[in-house]
Amino acid sequence: MAEHVFDPSIFHHVWDRDIPTALTVAPGDVVHFDVLMAGERQIAAGYTYADCSFDFDTLYNLCGPIDVAGAEVGDTLAIEVLSLQTGPYGWCAFLEGVGLLPDDFPEPYVHHFDLTRGETTTLCDGVEIPIVPFCGTMGTCPDRPGQFAPFPPHEGGGNIDTRHITVGTRLYLPVHLAGGRFSFGDPHAAQGDGEVCVAAIECGMKASLRFGLLKRTSPGPWFVTPPGSLTPAADVRGYYGTTGIAPDLMEGARMAVRAMIELLGIEEGLDPTMAYMLCSLAGDLKIFEIVDMGMWNVGMCMPRAVFTG
Amino acid sequence: MAEHVFDPSIFHHVWDRDIPTALTVAPGDVVHFDVLMAGERQIAAGYTYADCSFDFDTLYNLCGPIDVAGAEVGDTLAIEVLSLQTGPYGWCAFLEGVGLLPDDFPEPYVHHFDLTRGETTTLCDGVEIPIVPFCGTMGTCPDRPGQFAPFPPHEGGGNIDTRHITVGTRLYLPVHLAGGRFSFGDPHAAQGDGEVCVAAIECGMKASLRFGLLKRTSPGPWFVTPPGSLTPAADVRGYYGTTGIAPDLMEGARMAVRAMIELLGIEEGLDPTMAYMLCSLAGDLKIFEIVDMGMWNVGMCMPRAVFTG
Repeated sequence: MAEHVFDPSIFHHVWDRDIPTALTVAPGDVVHFDVLMAGERQIAAGYTYADCSFDFDTLYNLCGPIDVAGAEVGDTLAIEVLSLQTGPYGWCAFLEGVGLLPDDFPEPYVHHFDLTRGETTTLCDGVEIPIVPFCGTMGTCPDRPGQFAPFPPHEGGGNIDTRHITVGTRLYLPVHLAGGRFSFGDPHAAQGDGEVCVAAIECGMKASLRFGLLKRTSPGPWFVTPPGSLTPAADVRGYYGTTGIAPDLMEGARMAVRAMIELLGIEEGLDPTMAYMLCSLAGDLKIFEIVDMGMWNVGMCMPRAVFTG
Repeated sequence: MAEHVFDPSIFHHVWDRDIPTALTVAPGDVVHFDVLMAGERQIAAGYTYADCSFDFDTLYNLCGPIDVAGAEVGDTLAIEVLSLQTGPYGWCAFLEGVGLLPDDFPEPYVHHFDLTRGETTTLCDGVEIPIVPFCGTMGTCPDRPGQFAPFPPHEGGGNIDTRHITVGTRLYLPVHLAGGRFSFGDPHAAQGDGEVCVAAIECGMKASLRFGLLKRTSPGPWFVTPPGSLTPAADVRGYYGTTGIAPDLMEGARMAVRAMIELLGIEEGLDPTMAYMLCSLAGDLKIFEIVDMGMWNVGMCMPRAVFTG
């Protein structure tokens, strides 16, 4: 078992099976990374939206590709998240025409976060969001010709934006090309299930991963979390829950988020902009039922621990 | 503040604003109920599917309607769940043509549960499901003429099948008719978010509820859970998570559940029938992301605590 330090000058913006291997590791090896923020060089502390130069073609800065010696097509890479440490600065944004509620929030908006103060970061007066880091993009390169964008997610995982792949979780990814050709990035300091406004708290991150190999197939990307709740940093005061009862899951999700935004206004005095961003950063979309005669119930749960007032 | 015992001979099978009020309470009053099982007189311990006489018109046996004195249209009923105690017997079933995966599991099947042994109930060798009771149907009667079935859910809640409305949770329901006209039933001993096979562990239940009244509107049915994790009985060993990456949330949900069924076969040796039922009874459907360029990621999380092997 060896430890490696990944060359921080190597990163790539797209998936492409022809990008040269940056590092080959043996099963059991650990690699330490310094992962660039999504939007590095495009946004910085204090910028207004007009100051930003968002370029989706170069938004993500993925570390990799990393090959695991002996990995063959049909095998499974096992990635254990050993440690994650956020950089000092984070951002979140509403961008025009994207996210779950673009018509409700048509104005672009950027928000900056100070990540230097410990276990939480302040959204606004009375709202402290637990810092629970993960990387939104973790994937093996699909076996497709040419270049393609880091989003949306794909058969190798990629931009799965799954908040539960935090420290202690093992992620299992299907191998589509010899070696696995694993890349990752898009570090997030906090995000709820859904990422409804289209962004998490985007930040830089130091990450340490252990690479393993299973000589068998996997049913798509899957993971195993460490013992305990899926949301230990948020559980202490219980949850607000809203419902979205609709014949379409997408419409139900919109209803549940709109209900949460309204509820947070009534119960916690949050304005809609802060409430929508909070839904993206700490609210969890769930499907309460998906079987009831054509009417489904999508819910959002919001930890009450974020409210310090 | 008064305590009432609800007359156990009073129940109804449909929503109907013209059903006479069974009990009127004052805000703050507590009512004790003996709630009939869904399928009472249609299924019993030891029945095969062929022995059952399922009749959807009389499947649910709802307690109510209960009016809260002073509740006016536009107000909100607050229902606090004080205690829930399951009866000794429970059942779950696959029924033809319903559930999330009817094509994968076309054969009807009923399964019986012994609920007398404490905090868990056995699904099969090596699988113990935590008993976390709630009532699948809790609602205020909509202001519509005539009779309509207890499912699907509606603007007053109804068959919301929301597992988080367990002991300690407060449920808030919009009032559509003077008094609120609250009814509830469909007791469940255990269910995951999604209820994917179409049934929970259906059982009889003793329930105690406190009724309150807010003189303001609510953004649809919502709830507040007690301090702690949403799934405290299941958290101890962490979770398996699967993903369903698809351009449609329903298809993503099917993928995530199929992946979980496959994974539980590989990792825990479960046959598909037991795995699908376990997904309904203990697996939680989540929406990991709903914003990524037309490809969504629906997940299922399964507590590893259910596996005792």
